[in-house]
Amino acid sequence: MTGVGIVGVGTSHFGRQPDEDLVGLASAALTEAFGDAGTDEIDAVWVGTVFGPAGCGPRVLRALGITGVPVITIETACASGTVAFAEAHEAVQTGRYGRVLALGMEQMSTAFDGAISPEPTDPEGRSGLAMPALYAMAAARYLHLGMATPEQLAAVSVKNHAHARHNPRAQYAGVYTVEEVLASRMIADPLTLLQCCPTSDGAAAAILAPATGGPREIRVRGVASRTGRPWNHRSGHVWGHDLVRDTAVDAYAAAGLDGPGDIDVVEVHDAFTIGEIVTTEALGLVPPGEGGKAAATGLTALGGPVPVNPSGGLLSRGHPLGATGLAQVAEIVWQLRGEAGGRQVPDARLGLVETMGGGVSVLDGNACVVAVLEG
Amino acid sequence: MTGVGIVGVGTSHFGRQPDEDLVGLASAALTEAFGDAGTDEIDAVWVGTVFGPAGCGPRVLRALGITGVPVITIETACASGTVAFAEAHEAVQTGRYGRVLALGMEQMSTAFDGAISPEPTDPEGRSGLAMPALYAMAAARYLHLGMATPEQLAAVSVKNHAHARHNPRAQYAGVYTVEEVLASRMIADPLTLLQCCPTSDGAAAAILAPATGGPREIRVRGVASRTGRPWNHRSGHVWGHDLVRDTAVDAYAAAGLDGPGDIDVVEVHDAFTIGEIVTTEALGLVPPGEGGKAAATGLTALGGPVPVNPSGGLLSRGHPLGATGLAQVAEIVWQLRGEAGGRQVPDARLGLVETMGGGVSVLDGNACVVAVLEG
Repeated sequence: MTGVGIVGVGTSHFGRQPDEDLVGLASAALTEAFGDAGTDEIDAVWVGTVFGPAGCGPRVLRALGITGVPVITIETACASGTVAFAEAHEAVQTGRYGRVLALGMEQMSTAFDGAISPEPTDPEGRSGLAMPALYAMAAARYLHLGMATPEQLAAVSVKNHAHARHNPRAQYAGVYTVEEVLASRMIADPLTLLQCCPTSDGAAAAILAPATGGPREIRVRGVASRTGRPWNHRSGHVWGHDLVRDTAVDAYAAAGLDGPGDIDVVEVHDAFTIGEIVTTEALGLVPPGEGGKAAATGLTALGGPVPVNPSGGLLSRGHPLGATGLAQVAEIVWQLRGEAGGRQVPDARLGLVETMGGGVSVLDGNACVVAVLEG
Repeated sequence: MTGVGIVGVGTSHFGRQPDEDLVGLASAALTEAFGDAGTDEIDAVWVGTVFGPAGCGPRVLRALGITGVPVITIETACASGTVAFAEAHEAVQTGRYGRVLALGMEQMSTAFDGAISPEPTDPEGRSGLAMPALYAMAAARYLHLGMATPEQLAAVSVKNHAHARHNPRAQYAGVYTVEEVLASRMIADPLTLLQCCPTSDGAAAAILAPATGGPREIRVRGVASRTGRPWNHRSGHVWGHDLVRDTAVDAYAAAGLDGPGDIDVVEVHDAFTIGEIVTTEALGLVPPGEGGKAAATGLTALGGPVPVNPSGGLLSRGHPLGATGLAQVAEIVWQLRGEAGGRQVPDARLGLVETMGGGVSVLDGNACVVAVLEG
C-alpha cells in the first residue's frame, strides 16, 4: 500500500462561543481525532488559522501537552485549514514525517463585530468591498446574465440549512422556504442574511499517515493547491471560477481521474450561496450555467445524484476560517466511512473537498485547495 | 550535482521606516534577489511574517506582479523567515517545485510602540515577562553562576555594533565602549538599551533551486528545524539552550559534519546580548561556560577564529521579525561568495545560520532553525 491515509478526524462544535478560547476549541477537535486514530503520537503539526495571535499554534498545542514536534502555523485566508491538510499530506507522501497532524482553529466571535473588517492595505477593501460585497457582485452578475434567479440563490441556503438538521455540530439548521430566505435582512444585494455564512468559532483536525490499507483508513487520492492568477477581465467567468477550475483539473489528475464523474459526495466553500453555485460549475459537477438550478432541482441535495455540502456547509455548519477546510475533510471522511448518520450519502466511495481563500483583493483568489478522498 | 542551491538573495534597508509599507520593503528585497538570480521566474513562494495582516503574503506579491504561483504564509515567531527558508529548501529537495522564493517581511514600527506587547493568552506574558524580561532572566542566571560578567554581556553589543559599521544596510552601527553600553538606559536588568535589538522594518529574500554547481551558487549543506520540548527544570541550562543544541545536532548531521569545527562564519539570533552567548555555547562554537568570554576576547569578532554576526546581528542590523532569518541567510551567502565588503571573513567556505523564535511562553522555544551553507 503506497500513498497517504487519513487515520483520524475530529472537530469541536461550531458556533458563536465567545466564552471558549482556542485551547478549548482545539482540545475538542484533537481529543476526537486522537481517539479516532487510536493514538496521540504525531511527528509534526501544521496549524491553519487566519486571525489567531502570533505564536498561537505552539502555544495552544503546549496547553494540550503536545510539545517537542515541529509546528508550522500557516495563513492562506479561508483555505488555511485545507492548505495545512495539503502540507501535511506532502510531508507524509515524501516521507519527511510519519504521522502528521493538521489542525485548523479560529475564534471569530471575539475578533470581529459582524463581518470581517477589510484590511486597510487591501485595495478592494478600501473601496468598501468586504467579503459579502465581493460575493454579491458575483451574484449580481449571475442574475444579470440570467444564469441564476434570486430563488435559485436562496435554494442553496434552503438545502444546506436542511442538510444541517442532521449534523449535531452545526451552528444553524432549520427548515426554511425560499421566500423566508429572500425575506431575511439584506446584507449585500442580492445576498440576504440567510445566504451569508455566520460568525463562527471552532476547530477541526485530521491525522495523516502512510497508507496501510486498514479498514477505517480513508485514502488521499489526490490534492492540489493553487494561488490565483491575475483576474482576466476578458474571462466570461466571475472571480474564483477560473482558480477553482484550474485547481480541480490538477486534483483530478493527481487522483488519476478524468473528471468529477465518479465523485459521490462533495463539500465546497459556500461562504455565500453564490459561492456554491460558481464552485459546482467550476468543479465540473454541473455544466456551465447549470449551477443555479442545481439546488432548486434537488440535483445537489441529499438524495440527489451529486450531494453537495451534506454537512450544511459554511452557510449552516458555520465558518471559523482556519477550521473550515479540516471540517470539510472530516465530513467527507465520515461520509466515506458510512458514519455520517442522518446525512449519510449511501455507498459513498469517492469524495471531494474544495476550499477557496480570499477574494479579488488577491486577484482571482488567495488560495484554493481541492482534495479527492477515497473510502 | 544533487542537492539545493541558493541562486539569489536580497534585502531592503533595515531600520525604522514607518512611511514605508510591506510592498515597498519587499520590493527592495525582491528586486535585489531577482537581479542576483538573473531571473524572476519562480514556481512557489513561502512568506514568513509574524505581525503582517491576514492575506499580506499574496497581496504584497500581487502588488509586485508575482501571481499565479502557490503562496504559503507561515508564522513561527522570530524564526518565521528561516522556517520559510527551510520549507522552500524542502520543496526543492523533494522536487515538489523547481525554483522557490522564500520571502520574509515585517514592519514593527507601525505595529508597536516600543517592545512587543505580550499576547494576553500567553501565561508568561501575563506575568509581565515580555521578551526583554525573558532574556534578562537568562542573563541574570549567567551572572549569578559566574558564567558571564556585565562587561562580557556588553562586549557582545560593542562587537556587533562595530561589525555593523561595515554593513550599509544596518539600522545602527557605531564604536561604543563597554562602559557606554552598560551606561545606556536599563531596559530589563541586567540588559541595557544597547543590549536589546531595536524596533525594525525590513524584508529579505532568498531564491532556492536544484544545485547545478554554478560558480556563484551557494549550496545548502543541511537544514534542521525544531519546536521546543517542555522546559526541563532539572536542566542546568537557561531556556533556549537545549533547543538550539538539539537543532544544531540535527543540522550538523544533515550537513555531514561531526560538529561546528569547520564552520568559518556564523549568524546567530542575538535579539539580546545574552542570546548570542547562550547560542554560541549551544551550537558548540565555544565550550560550555566560555560563551561569556568570547566577544570580550575577540574570539567571535571579525578577525577572530569564529566570527559571529559579521552583519551586526539583530542587535545592530535590526530585527524585523519575519525578515531576520532571510537576512541572516543573505549575509552568509555574501560571505561565502566573498562579497561582504569591509566585513568579509577571509576565505569563508562553510557558514551557519541560527534563528530562535519565541520564549518560554512556548516552552523551550517556538521554533529554531539551523542551516549550514557551503560556498
